[in-house]
Amino acid sequence: MAKRHLLSTADLTVDDANLILDTAQELASVAGRAIKKLPTLRGRTVVNLFFEDSTRTRISFETAAKRLSADVINFSAKGSSVSKGESLKDTALTLEAMGADAVVVRHWASGGAHRLANAGWIRSSVVNAGDGTHEHPTQALLDAFTLRQRLGSVAGRHVAIVGDVLHSRVARSNVHLLATLGAEVTLVAPPTLLPLGVEHWPCASSYELDPILPKCDAVMMLRVQRERMNQAFFPTEREYSRRYGLQAARMALLPQHAVVMHPGPMNRGLEISAEVADSVRSTVTEQVANGVSVRMAVLYLLLGGAESAIGNDEEGSAR
Amino acid sequence: MAKRHLLSTADLTVDDANLILDTAQELASVAGRAIKKLPTLRGRTVVNLFFEDSTRTRISFETAAKRLSADVINFSAKGSSVSKGESLKDTALTLEAMGADAVVVRHWASGGAHRLANAGWIRSSVVNAGDGTHEHPTQALLDAFTLRQRLGSVAGRHVAIVGDVLHSRVARSNVHLLATLGAEVTLVAPPTLLPLGVEHWPCASSYELDPILPKCDAVMMLRVQRERMNQAFFPTEREYSRRYGLQAARMALLPQHAVVMHPGPMNRGLEISAEVADSVRSTVTEQVANGVSVRMAVLYLLLGGAESAIGNDEEGSAR
Amino acid sequence: MAKRHLLSTADLTVDDANLILDTAQELASVAGRAIKKLPTLRGRTVVNLFFEDSTRTRISFETAAKRLSADVINFSAKGSSVSKGESLKDTALTLEAMGADAVVVRHWASGGAHRLANAGWIRSSVVNAGDGTHEHPTQALLDAFTLRQRLGSVAGRHVAIVGDVLHSRVARSNVHLLATLGAEVTLVAPPTLLPLGVEHWPCASSYELDPILPKCDAVMMLRVQRERMNQAFFPTEREYSRRYGLQAARMALLPQHAVVMHPGPMNRGLEISAEVADSVRSTVTEQVANGVSVRMAVLYLLLGGAESAIGNDEEGSAR
Repeated sequence: MAKRHLLSTADLTVDDANLILDTAQELASVAGRAIKKLPTLRGRTVVNLFFEDSTRTRISFETAAKRLSADVINFSAKGSSVSKGESLKDTALTLEAMGADAVVVRHWASGGAHRLANAGWIRSSVVNAGDGTHEHPTQALLDAFTLRQRLGSVAGRHVAIVGDVLHSRVARSNVHLLATLGAEVTLVAPPTLLPLGVEHWPCASSYELDPILPKCDAVMMLRVQRERMNQAFFPTEREYSRRYGLQAARMALLPQHAVVMHPGPMNRGLEISAEVADSVRSTVTEQVANGVSVRMAVLYLLLGGAESAIGNDEEGSAR
Repeated sequence: MAKRHLLSTADLTVDDANLILDTAQELASVAGRAIKKLPTLRGRTVVNLFFEDSTRTRISFETAAKRLSADVINFSAKGSSVSKGESLKDTALTLEAMGADAVVVRHWASGGAHRLANAGWIRSSVVNAGDGTHEHPTQALLDAFTLRQRLGSVAGRHVAIVGDVLHSRVARSNVHLLATLGAEVTLVAPPTLLPLGVEHWPCASSYELDPILPKCDAVMMLRVQRERMNQAFFPTEREYSRRYGLQAARMALLPQHAVVMHPGPMNRGLEISAEVADSVRSTVTEQVANGVSVRMAVLYLLLGGAESAIGNDEEGSAR
Repeated sequence: MAKRHLLSTADLTVDDANLILDTAQELASVAGRAIKKLPTLRGRTVVNLFFEDSTRTRISFETAAKRLSADVINFSAKGSSVSKGESLKDTALTLEAMGADAVVVRHWASGGAHRLANAGWIRSSVVNAGDGTHEHPTQALLDAFTLRQRLGSVAGRHVAIVGDVLHSRVARSNVHLLATLGAEVTLVAPPTLLPLGVEHWPCASSYELDPILPKCDAVMMLRVQRERMNQAFFPTEREYSRRYGLQAARMALLPQHAVVMHPGPMNRGLEISAEVADSVRSTVTEQVANGVSVRMAVLYLLLGGAESAIGNDEEGSAR
């Protein structure tokens, strides 16, 4: 991959995206063997720079990096000099100077990862692990990986993305990537939870879920942020669940082969019922597993491991 | 060991317990050599899933796992999606999907580890690192290891366990294990700090410490939780210390060969005096050291290292 | 190095200091190669015991230890049994018993590291990573390393240390080390921010910055702790910046070859302007990079790696 950073799925060409997905596929098959650790990134340092907590995303990247034998430094910006007023610039310069090869950044501000990557402060690769309500590209990549695995392909498939699209970086990253990969996307949300200008996005939108489901190959349920539920623009919990929640009855409207996705963590009983979450159609745990493979692929491709990632395990004779 | 989890010492047969203790003994002797690291669990991932803080227990397991070359992921449930309402089930499914080989779980609720292990959610091994007031099996195993090391054997020995038995998982795990290994146990506590139904436990109990001491081979002082001391069922600090604290004068009632144990951290001057804590009879730091060996043995046995743990160090030719 | 601990730069002879700096130089040149990881401390455990937060210092030591292949255990004293009242002694005994080879300690109390090292509790090496307002020896060593790298030598150079000397462990450690290495030091601060007895320190002092600058080879700007700025002894922010802050106009008073140092994190616009911080004279990011090399050298020398640190990389045939 010619790129040095992964900031947005909007930056990825079809070839970029397929290279990541193919590499993830190969790494996943290696990781399925007895010895799961590859020496590819030995001696490289991956820093998890988290300006807001996200244990799931942090441990997924940490696991991915460690399987490639990289050293991992966890840097929670809470309690750090960042909270004492150090600028993002000085934090970046510090990590660079300490020899970080990649910085995985989670930031509460939209554009945080772009600023870190593009201000000219650092030579390290920057991976956006979620910036405000903007993007979360590895989430979209693992979703595409899961679709490919379950449905055989992404191109030509119809995917509904359901819920609080307005505040969802998962939705934004998926819309871009799915469009690039040739899927058809419909956003489903109440009017107050669709962004202004959504008509210019490369997708359709709808206020109603039921009419969309019969033509979907996949439906992606977004997590409801409970802290937003008391705000004026948000439906009541009961109203939301009734109109946009996925229960067994509504799942029955999907074609037989269609899958149900969720980026986790789920609010069981709100946007998704427990029955649906645990059904064979649900890909929730596959998405988590695929997240590790996709993040291994991204780190491998950005850091350009000195050795082939494939067919060369920890104990391999190629050493 | 045929078992997949370590949840309770009540589940352990004599053979199970001895296998763990013997393995710990062998690992401890290897770790005493210049190079302390074994390649046994290379490529395996151990997750420390802590729903309440316990730095000592966490770093003991972390040290044990790293000495076996496993990768360690620390997952503090504070600030994680768990605190945003994610269910234990979804946390378990997530860790499983990320490829955790063992989950070391500390939970504030009695039964937390059992639920994680037995609900059918995961294939990973679960190690109970303390669940509510219920059990803390590796603590009991390291105590038994220490008794064996100091006294030559556990069977036939008399052990007093002194203090807030009511709230102590350490006491519960020790009562089961010591009974299995053939020791005689007496619980010593004020009536309000003995559990209901203690007469059905495989041990004796007493409200008085002094008459018990002369026949003890070991006395195990439980930690007083200071936050409980203001509650009605608890004696005053002075009263507690006077009747149940172990000071030099009271230690003199023990036979010459008897040892003093404490799971740590100690409240010096409350349940144990500084003089006793630092005496040659005190096994406190040996218990900590043995904790690492016992936890190495548990992880090794549960994860069934591909290679012999023994006689095969990091630099060994067997690679 | 004959010493077992690194507690204070006042303890270091010229030979000690030069050995550390020379070793750091060699390690830095190895780390510049493709494979940055050395097997020197494989199987050794370094514990970062932090009684107050300092992410920058923690990750610098963590990076240094991992580059030498040591295992690193991070122990934040917050939320630990330490905050439940465990004594420093018991914490020390615990870490020792778990097999820590080195304890890197950051403590809010002046003398914290000395107490840990000298009370006879542990055999592990203790590295002072900052104790109260007392010392921060690895900071002074990395500063000396940077001076040597930029100016060719430390002996005979004139260094100004500017700011809140009263509360600065960085200043204390630098005064001792620079004097040992033969540099001339002038402390510059308002009278209320100079310590009592400074006339007995091996350096000059001044209330005025401008007259000092023309004869300096290096000027070291101390970080202003904003929480101190509202106290009576502290000038107002505007007054401080006007008299002691380093802006471009004032930097012009320095000789052409002189460098500007700052231990970080900087308050841009207060003790140092952004223009100065980012100028070619600023060594701020070099100091961070050198910090990793110097800490590698300190850990290597204290733990006495079994193999030469140099010329023997991770993949080397010497294994």
